Amino acid sequence: MTDHNWMVVEEGFDPERVAHFETVFTQGNGFLGTRGSFEEYYPGKHNSTFAHGVFDDVPIFFKELANLPDWTELFVDLDGETFSLVSGELLGYRRCLSLRDGLLVRELRWKSPQGKISSLVFSRFISRANERLCLQKVEITPENYAGKLLVRAGLDGGASNLDLKHWDWLNQRQQAKTFTLELKTKGSGIKLEMSQILCCSDKNAAHSYWNTFNHPTQAIEKVLKEHEKFTVWKAVEIKVAPFEQESPAGKPINLDEVQWDAQLAAHRKLWQEDWQRSDIIIEGDDETQLAMRASIYHLLIAGPRHSERVNIGAKTLSGQGYRGHTFWDTEIFMLPFFTYTNPQIARNLLSYRYHNLPGALEKASKNGFEGAQYPWESAADGREVTPVWVPYHKDPSQMVRIWCGDVEIHISSDIAYAVLQYWKATGDERFMVDRGAEIVLQTARFWASRLEWNSQTQQYEINNVIGPDENHDRIDNNAYTNYMVRWHLRTAVGIFAWLKTQHPAEFKSLAERLSLSDEQVAEWADKAEKIFLAFDEKTGLIEQFDGYFNLKTLDMRDFAGRTDSIQSILGVEEAAQTQTLKQPDVLMLMYLHPELFDPEIQKINFDYYTPRTDLEYGSSLGPSIQAIMAARLGEMQNAYENFVRAAQADLKDVRGNARDGIHGASAGGLWQAAVFGFAGLKIGEQAWSIDPKLPQGWKRLAFKFWYHGKEESIDIRAEGKR
Amino acid sequence: MTDHNWMVVEEGFDPERVAHFETVFTQGNGFLGTRGSFEEYYPGKHNSTFAHGVFDDVPIFFKELANLPDWTELFVDLDGETFSLVSGELLGYRRCLSLRDGLLVRELRWKSPQGKISSLVFSRFISRANERLCLQKVEITPENYAGKLLVRAGLDGGASNLDLKHWDWLNQRQQAKTFTLELKTKGSGIKLEMSQILCCSDKNAAHSYWNTFNHPTQAIEKVLKEHEKFTVWKAVEIKVAPFEQESPAGKPINLDEVQWDAQLAAHRKLWQEDWQRSDIIIEGDDETQLAMRASIYHLLIAGPRHSERVNIGAKTLSGQGYRGHTFWDTEIFMLPFFTYTNPQIARNLLSYRYHNLPGALEKASKNGFEGAQYPWESAADGREVTPVWVPYHKDPSQMVRIWCGDVEIHISSDIAYAVLQYWKATGDERFMVDRGAEIVLQTARFWASRLEWNSQTQQYEINNVIGPDENHDRIDNNAYTNYMVRWHLRTAVGIFAWLKTQHPAEFKSLAERLSLSDEQVAEWADKAEKIFLAFDEKTGLIEQFDGYFNLKTLDMRDFAGRTDSIQSILGVEEAAQTQTLKQPDVLMLMYLHPELFDPEIQKINFDYYTPRTDLEYGSSLGPSIQAIMAARLGEMQNAYENFVRAAQADLKDVRGNARDGIHGASAGGLWQAAVFGFAGLKIGEQAWSIDPKLPQGWKRLAFKFWYHGKEESIDIRAEGKR
Repeated sequence: MTDHNWMVVEEGFDPERVAHFETVFTQGNGFLGTRGSFEEYYPGKHNSTFAHGVFDDVPIFFKELANLPDWTELFVDLDGETFSLVSGELLGYRRCLSLRDGLLVRELRWKSPQGKISSLVFSRFISRANERLCLQKVEITPENYAGKLLVRAGLDGGASNLDLKHWDWLNQRQQAKTFTLELKTKGSGIKLEMSQILCCSDKNAAHSYWNTFNHPTQAIEKVLKEHEKFTVWKAVEIKVAPFEQESPAGKPINLDEVQWDAQLAAHRKLWQEDWQRSDIIIEGDDETQLAMRASIYHLLIAGPRHSERVNIGAKTLSGQGYRGHTFWDTEIFMLPFFTYTNPQIARNLLSYRYHNLPGALEKASKNGFEGAQYPWESAADGREVTPVWVPYHKDPSQMVRIWCGDVEIHISSDIAYAVLQYWKATGDERFMVDRGAEIVLQTARFWASRLEWNSQTQQYEINNVIGPDENHDRIDNNAYTNYMVRWHLRTAVGIFAWLKTQHPAEFKSLAERLSLSDEQVAEWADKAEKIFLAFDEKTGLIEQFDGYFNLKTLDMRDFAGRTDSIQSILGVEEAAQTQTLKQPDVLMLMYLHPELFDPEIQKINFDYYTPRTDLEYGSSLGPSIQAIMAARLGEMQNAYENFVRAAQADLKDVRGNARDGIHGASAGGLWQAAVFGFAGLKIGEQAWSIDPKLPQGWKRLAFKFWYHGKEESIDIRAEGKR
Repeated sequence: MTDHNWMVVEEGFDPERVAHFETVFTQGNGFLGTRGSFEEYYPGKHNSTFAHGVFDDVPIFFKELANLPDWTELFVDLDGETFSLVSGELLGYRRCLSLRDGLLVRELRWKSPQGKISSLVFSRFISRANERLCLQKVEITPENYAGKLLVRAGLDGGASNLDLKHWDWLNQRQQAKTFTLELKTKGSGIKLEMSQILCCSDKNAAHSYWNTFNHPTQAIEKVLKEHEKFTVWKAVEIKVAPFEQESPAGKPINLDEVQWDAQLAAHRKLWQEDWQRSDIIIEGDDETQLAMRASIYHLLIAGPRHSERVNIGAKTLSGQGYRGHTFWDTEIFMLPFFTYTNPQIARNLLSYRYHNLPGALEKASKNGFEGAQYPWESAADGREVTPVWVPYHKDPSQMVRIWCGDVEIHISSDIAYAVLQYWKATGDERFMVDRGAEIVLQTARFWASRLEWNSQTQQYEINNVIGPDENHDRIDNNAYTNYMVRWHLRTAVGIFAWLKTQHPAEFKSLAERLSLSDEQVAEWADKAEKIFLAFDEKTGLIEQFDGYFNLKTLDMRDFAGRTDSIQSILGVEEAAQTQTLKQPDVLMLMYLHPELFDPEIQKINFDYYTPRTDLEYGSSLGPSIQAIMAARLGEMQNAYENFVRAAQADLKDVRGNARDGIHGASAGGLWQAAVFGFAGLKIGEQAWSIDPKLPQGWKRLAFKFWYHGKEESIDIRAEGKR
C-alpha cells in the first residue's frame, strides 16, 4: 500500500480544468462541504461552501442549498503586488488532496509582474473533530526580495449561488482577536453565525480589523526579509442555528485557543477510524484503487453524522448541480455504503425520510391518493421540489415541462427497499419498530390506492409513469415499478404481521394512529398478486414497459465517437421513439431482486438490454449497476469496462460535467460494484456469503462491513497471483 | 410662489413607508438615478442606482438595468455604537427633497441604546453639471457626550437587483486619497469604474483605506468633544465605458479637487435653467402644484441629455418595476413634455428608436412581416424583451403566458406618431430627413404587410392584437390600432412625397437603401383607405374591438371601496368577459386624433366608455388621458378628479405600488393634462392656440414651451379671481 494511492494530484496549472478540480478537491465533514476553489481571486471560480439542510428559496427549482460566505478567502499582497494566477508567472505548481485526512495543499512558486519570486504553500481542512471548524494556512517565503507582506482575509456576507444572493445581513461585531458575522437566509430564515481569527508566526506583526459592512476583514502586515518564511493561518467557526442542538461536537469553540497542529491531529485521528471501517483495498490496479478511495472519500465527507433532518444531494455538498436536492440516488446508490460501513449515518439518512413523512402524505393527498408518496426531488421538508417548467436551453423564452415530479413514482418503493436492506444488514429492530415500519406501511398504502384495475385483463396496472430509464417518460406498466410494487405490498403485509406479533404494544399504537386495519392490509396482499408483471415465457424477456418492443432499435455503432448522450443527439422526442435506455431499467430490477429471476433469465435480458443502453453518456447512475450485473453473470470485460466508467466519472471527468459536483450515486454504485459485484457479497437474514470474481490483473480485493452489529472482514486474493 | 411648493417632505419616520419614500426621493441627472434609500443599514431597504443603458441578462425578463454599487453607503459609529434606525430612539426626524435642485436632506436627532444623543444631517445630490459625479455629506454633533467618531464608507461590488448579482469584479486600486473599483456586467460585459474620496472638516482626523476584496472602504476617525460639529463628505465618480465618449461633461474628474460648495453651485445653476423652461405654475391649489413639480422633476432626472442610445423605462431610473424596459409610455406619455420643453432630450429619445431599427426589422422578419416592428418592451438594443412566460403568483410552479410581446403591436404607430409630433413642434427638419422618415416608412411597411384582407367585406382587418386596454387580449380590429394604422399609412405616403420633392438627394439614397418604390407606396395609400374602421352611424359609438358591445356590462358601483383592479378581483379570464377597460382606448384614440371626430361624437363615446373604465386601479396610464378628454369636453369635475389621481400616483401612493418606482407615464400624462387639457394648447403646422378651462379654485396656470425653435410663454389667470 503506497501513499500515491491516497493522493489526488493536480500537477501543473491548467486554466481549462479549474472548475473540474474545484469539484474533485471538495473537502467536508458530513456537515459542511467546500469546493476546492482558490483562496484568492480567480475569474469564473465557482467557490461554494454548503451546509446540510441550509436551503433557501430559488425560482424554478423551489429550494436550493444556499452558498455560505467563503471561509477560505485570503489575499496575499507581496511588496505591493497581489498574488494571483492571472498575472505574473508560475514557476511551479502542485496541488494535492490527501484522501487519508482530507488535507488540501497547494504549493507554488510565483514570479510577480515586477519579477519578485515567492514561494507559497496553502493548506486547509474542514475539521472532522469539530463540525463547525474550518482551518486554513499559508506559508510565504520571498525568494529574491525583501518587502512588505500584507495578508487580507474576510468573510463576505454577499455570497451567492452563481448570481443569486441568499443572505440578509443581521449583525457583525468584533471581539478581542476575532470577529463574527451574522446572517439569515432571505426566504427560509435560517440564521448563520460565522466567526474568524487570523494568526501568524510572528508576534510582532501588525494586525488590523476592517469593519467593512457585510464583509468584515482582518489583515496582517509584516516586512519580510529575503528567504524569511512567514506563516499566516486562519480559523473559522460556522454555526447554523437549527443544527446547534444536534451536534455532539457542538461545544462552543474558543477561537483564540485553536491551534493548527492540535486540531489537525484530532481531525486525523477520526479520519483514521473512518478509513479503518470504510476502505476498500484493490491491489494490482492503482488507478482504480485511487478512484475507489476518492469515491469513498466523497461519500464520507457528505454523510451526515449528527443530524437526522438532512440528506445527501445528488451532487453531495460539492457543487450547484441539482441544487442540493435528494433523489433515489441516496437510497439505492449511496445508502448501501453507509448501511454496511457506517450504519449510524444510514440511520440518519433513513430517519430524514421518516421525519419528512408529512410532506409525502401531503403529496399523495394532493394527487388524490392515500398514504405517503415521496417527492422525486426533496429538500429540507420533504415537499416535492422537482422543477415543473424550465426554460428551454436553446430558446429561453420557451418552457419545457419536466414530468419527473409528477410521475417518477418508483422512489416510494426505493425508500422502502432501503429500509428493509438496512434492517436486514444491521438488525436494528428499534429503528424498524419506531420508524421503518411506518415508512413501509404508509408508502404501501399509497400504492394500494395508486393501482389501476383493468377489468379486461383482470389485473392491476400502473400507467403514466417514468422508470429508472428517463429516456421514456409517461409510459405504462414500467416493469421496474410494477415488480417493485408487488414486492413492496407483499413486504408491507409481512411487516404488519411481524409488528403485530413481535411488538404488539407499538403495533396497536401505530395501527391506531395510521387507522390501519387487518382488512386493509389483506386487500394489499390481494392486490399484490394481481399486479400485471411483464414476462415473455417464450423468449424469457421482460418488456421494459408497454410497447417498448415496438420501438425503433438503434445501432449504437452508428454513433461511435460521440461525446454526448443519445437523447441530446436525437432530441428528447425522437430518442423516446427508440429503444435506447438512459440507464439500466429491467437490469436494475434484477440487481435489486435477484431472487425473482433465474440466472438464465437474467442473462437473456442482460444480452438484450446491454447493447440498447447508453452507458457512456446516458445517466451516470448506469455504469455501476451494469458492472454489478455483468460481474454476476460472469461478463467480466463488460463489468470492468463499466466499473472504470463509474470510477472515472469525476476524477477523469469522463462525462464532461464534473464541474457541477461529484456524482454521488456513481460513487456509491462503485462501492456496491466492488462489494456486491466483484466480491459477490450476498447478505441473508442470518448469514452472508461471497462469490468473488475479480477483474483481470486485480491481485487483491479487501474490505470490511458490518453485519448485525459486528464488523466482518473480507480479503480476497487472486489465485496463483502471489 | 412660496418654497413649500418646491419641497417634498417626510415629517417623522414611518417604517411602513420606507419603500414608498425611496421612490419619491429618487435623485438623478439624466444619466444616473438613485433611490432615496438610507445611507446606513436598514432591513429590507431597496437601494438602487441605475445608469441608462446598463442592462444585463436576467431570467424571464431577458434584460434588466443592473443595480450599481451603492455610492451612498455610509456608516456612522458614535463612541462605539453604530447609528441605525432600528436601534436606539429617534428624537426628531425630517427628510426633505428640494425639487428646485434635487438636494435631499435628512435631519435627525438620535439617542443611542446607551443614551448618547447625536444630531445628524445627511445631504446628497447627483450632479447636473457633471453626469458622473455624486456627492454626499453628513454633519455630526454629539449633544451630550464626547467620544470617538468613526465614519465608514465603501463601494460594494456585490451589488444586486433584489437578490440577483450582475457584476464581476475586475480590479480595485488605491490612489493617493482615492480608490477605484472596476467591475463588468456578467452577461452584457459592460465595464464600470467607480472611484471615491472621503473628506472631512478636520485636517487632523485619521484616514484609513480598507482594501477589502470587492468592497473597498475608507474610514475617518476622530475624537469629538461634546457639541463639536464635524462634517464628513464623500464624492464618487461613476464611469460607464460605453458612454464615456458621448458625454460632453466627460472630462475626467480630479476627485482630489472636488469641493462640495462649488459643485453644488454649478449643479444649482443648471437646475435653475431646467426649471426656467420646464416649470408649470399652478396657483390656488398647492397640493397639485407640488405634485405637478414632482412629476416634472422625475421626468427631468430621467431624460437622457447626452446619449441617443438610451431611453426612459416605464419606472424611470427609480425602481425595479418593469426592469428598466421602455414601452410606448415614452412616446405617447412622456415625450411631449420633452418635445415642448427640452427638445434635445426628445431628439435623443427618438434617436434611440432610430438606432434600434435593426431590432425592429429583425422582429418583423421573425414574424414573417416586412419593415420594422418595434418591440413592446425594449432594452439596450431594441430587441423584444417582453417576458413570454411568468410564474403564476399564486402557484409559482405554474406559468402564465404574456401575449403583449407577440400582439400589442400598436407601439410601432405610437412611435411614428411621436416622430410627427416632434417634427411639428420643433420643425427639426434635419432629424426628419436623417432619421424620422426612415422610422415612419419602415414601420408603415410593416403595417402594409401585416394587414389582413377580408374578401367578404372587401376590407383590411388587423386581428389578434392587444389595444391600449390590456384587459382584453388577442382581440380583432381594435379601433385604436386600426385608426392609427390608417393615419400611419397616409402619413407615410405624405412623408415619402415630401422627401422626394424637398430633399431629393436624401430621398434617392434612402429609397435605394430601403428598396422602396413608388408602386409600393401607392399600394400603402390604397390599403390605408380600405382598413376597417368601426363606427356606428346610428349611435355615434366606436366599438373598441369586434364583439366588445356583446360583453357583460359591470356596474362599477358594485365594487365600491375596492383597493385593487377589477382584473385582479375577477381574475384575468373573467375580467376579459366584461366591458371593463384597464385604461381609455377609444378615448385615447380621440385624444391623439381629435381631427377625426366631431366634438359630439367624442362626447358620446366619452359618456359611454367613462363608466366602463377602471380609472382607480386599472392602468396608471389611464387617469391623465381621461382628464384631458374630460377637460376638452368641459367635464371639469371628471377632469380634475382624474388629474388628481394621476398627480398623486406617486406622492400619495394612491395605487399602492409606488415602491416599484415612479409612474413615468403618469408624470408625463400629468404635464399633458395641464397643457393640452386645462390650458387647451393646440399645435398647428404654422401656429398654436389655447383654449383654457381651469379647474375650480385654480387662480393661475402658467408654463413655457418651445415651438419651432422659439420659446413661447403661456400665463392663464382665472377670470375675476384676482
